[in-house]
Amino acid sequence: MRGTLTELILSKHVKEGRVEPGEVITARVDRVIFHDLTGYHVIEVMEKAGKTEPWDPSKIVVAFDHLVPAPTVRAAEVQKKTREWALKHGVIFRDVGHGILHQVVVDEGLVEPGQVVIGADSHTNTAGAVGAFATGMGASDVAYAALFGEVWMRVPEPIRVELKGSLKPPVTTKDLVLKMLGDHGAGFANYKALEFVGEAVKTLSIEDRMTVANMTTEMGAKVGLFPSDEVTIDYYQSLGKSVKRLEPAPNAEYTDTLEYDLSSLEPMVAVPPRVDNVKPVTEVEGVEVDQVFIGSCTNGRLSDLEAAARILKGRKVHPRVRCIVIAASRKIYEEALKRGIVEVLTEAGCLVTWGTCGPCIGGHYGVLGPDEVGVFTSNRNFRGRTGHPTAKTYLASPYVAAASAIEGKIADPRRYL
Amino acid sequence: MRGTLTELILSKHVKEGRVEPGEVITARVDRVIFHDLTGYHVIEVMEKAGKTEPWDPSKIVVAFDHLVPAPTVRAAEVQKKTREWALKHGVIFRDVGHGILHQVVVDEGLVEPGQVVIGADSHTNTAGAVGAFATGMGASDVAYAALFGEVWMRVPEPIRVELKGSLKPPVTTKDLVLKMLGDHGAGFANYKALEFVGEAVKTLSIEDRMTVANMTTEMGAKVGLFPSDEVTIDYYQSLGKSVKRLEPAPNAEYTDTLEYDLSSLEPMVAVPPRVDNVKPVTEVEGVEVDQVFIGSCTNGRLSDLEAAARILKGRKVHPRVRCIVIAASRKIYEEALKRGIVEVLTEAGCLVTWGTCGPCIGGHYGVLGPDEVGVFTSNRNFRGRTGHPTAKTYLASPYVAAASAIEGKIADPRRYL
Repeated sequence: MRGTLTELILSKHVKEGRVEPGEVITARVDRVIFHDLTGYHVIEVMEKAGKTEPWDPSKIVVAFDHLVPAPTVRAAEVQKKTREWALKHGVIFRDVGHGILHQVVVDEGLVEPGQVVIGADSHTNTAGAVGAFATGMGASDVAYAALFGEVWMRVPEPIRVELKGSLKPPVTTKDLVLKMLGDHGAGFANYKALEFVGEAVKTLSIEDRMTVANMTTEMGAKVGLFPSDEVTIDYYQSLGKSVKRLEPAPNAEYTDTLEYDLSSLEPMVAVPPRVDNVKPVTEVEGVEVDQVFIGSCTNGRLSDLEAAARILKGRKVHPRVRCIVIAASRKIYEEALKRGIVEVLTEAGCLVTWGTCGPCIGGHYGVLGPDEVGVFTSNRNFRGRTGHPTAKTYLASPYVAAASAIEGKIADPRRYL
Repeated sequence: MRGTLTELILSKHVKEGRVEPGEVITARVDRVIFHDLTGYHVIEVMEKAGKTEPWDPSKIVVAFDHLVPAPTVRAAEVQKKTREWALKHGVIFRDVGHGILHQVVVDEGLVEPGQVVIGADSHTNTAGAVGAFATGMGASDVAYAALFGEVWMRVPEPIRVELKGSLKPPVTTKDLVLKMLGDHGAGFANYKALEFVGEAVKTLSIEDRMTVANMTTEMGAKVGLFPSDEVTIDYYQSLGKSVKRLEPAPNAEYTDTLEYDLSSLEPMVAVPPRVDNVKPVTEVEGVEVDQVFIGSCTNGRLSDLEAAARILKGRKVHPRVRCIVIAASRKIYEEALKRGIVEVLTEAGCLVTWGTCGPCIGGHYGVLGPDEVGVFTSNRNFRGRTGHPTAKTYLASPYVAAASAIEGKIADPRRYL
């Protein structure tokens, strides 16, 4: 695995200075991140261990996102415990109303290329978009990392995903990841490191990349890594931060290679109850829809809201449909407000807010009832994920979701552009 | 009771053409209104009665507001049942994202002066602001009214509330109703009709009046009535509707009279767990606050959001405080968006959405945890209402709430104007 992003990053985080696939290492950790739901368990583990003082509070990021504002007394209780811990120890804490953890850490540049980031959430992979070796772990491992600044893991084998061509709206990187899942099946990359390389990468914004990295989780991947290139450097510059270039060696050694041509993609839909039962939108058009959800750590970014607004501008959400739009963070919402996107979406009949996972996890703010059908831009659609066990959730891009909101049926967004 | 609003309205809704206080009448009903939570029970009663076809679908208004978007599978299920009934029978139906029932009926002019309005919600009184004899009833009575267009009730005794002087910001009609509750105790007007009259009435907007009528429920009143005057006529004109003047006779006979001078009021706070444990804000200043909620059918209107924005503009919500603002309807939110109020509130650090009762009922979107303290602009603060039984909710105006959000403690808004 010489020269892969995985090798380049992990070798700098072990005493030995080198790593091999399959090897169990103890890696130095740069950031530990968790949220309201998992935070409770992380702190519980610390309490059982008799130590709750983190190794370095400035390296820990806690953002409340799953059940905020609290929809139940229990959620409020859980948040209270984690809030008290966060404030007591002075970790980086983003309370209710800031944003979804995986968004906040990128919005604020709290994770950086080349870092090892451990999160108590499976979609920690999202930060792979900025070249961080970011991966989700259980409460015990995350508690350990928070207390001692290190973690053990097996070094994953790297798979190269070569991207060529370019996207043409309404095709997005959501369609790419859905296509990959459809082609190879959920979990096809179990415990592998997916590294996205090739000419097309530089055409993808950080937001585009986040959607990809995010859904490498559904592929089973330990991480989904993008290089730190001009796009990344420019992004951090816009935050007033300077980061280094980090790219795999031209002769980097991978276990396997996949190739995708972005130019040949079309809008895709994952048919419930599987994330990998993926079909072109043309094959599922016409399925009646009760609720559309545009948001989540997968697709709640400015470009996603812009995509939805592009389709919905001057049009109306179908009267049978609830169309819920949740910007992934306050920063995104504020920008959407300034650009008039919130107004466009509101006038079309969407309900707009920000900063919660909400319907993605069937948590609140749009849980599906019996036999209801949803088109969601989030990342999972297994039985019961988004509400009642008989509810059916189709996963798609914001373009597909917005077009479906208008028609009240799954719809091809190409008709609207 | 000759010449009172109560008499003028009810006498036109009975066959006999006249009513007496204490008499049990069968009154013709002009509007029947209910929401997601009570709708379920209303329809259940109909089903048990073997008839679900309403007497006149154009007279029935259903708006989903209590638990929207659904925070639980059960809420989604309940909504589904009522949605299906509403769509099947073609009643006036406002699904998730439109607004709070009591707001929607006034926003859209769906209730009018002189009407008898029966609602499956205790705060149906709110529509008394536009001169409608609007009162809350249980599911059986509301189902009967929906099926047959009539309802039986005892005619309430009328109490005259004479208002003089004028309000000076940050004093609002919320302070008036809190003062009334403090002076006379919750339930002091049990089953009475409170009629607001006097020179000061014409200085009060429909929004001001709605806050008053709304909280006559806490006074125990059957209705809280305002005349239909120039203000009312202008309001309906702005909706493209023409309504008649409806004022009590100069010599109308009341059982009792109260007098309030609006000029002498100051910002008031109801101290938990009682709505009538009311003190001037100066006596409770300094109590630490975890959450502020500006919204509800009591104070979620444009003028309320404007009041909050006036205080919060260029300032920041205290980092310890979650400040949740919920516009009572889409119409209000859209106007607040246009006027830049949403932007001001967002920049100050509030979380802004619309169209749900949410935290007022401890339902979702900001339920309080153990021992947490809230300053809410809503109408009730009994033990457990807003979350955990040990949580404490202070009721106040949007001005007091916004000032408290800034300081993280109950604060006097006069410092900020």
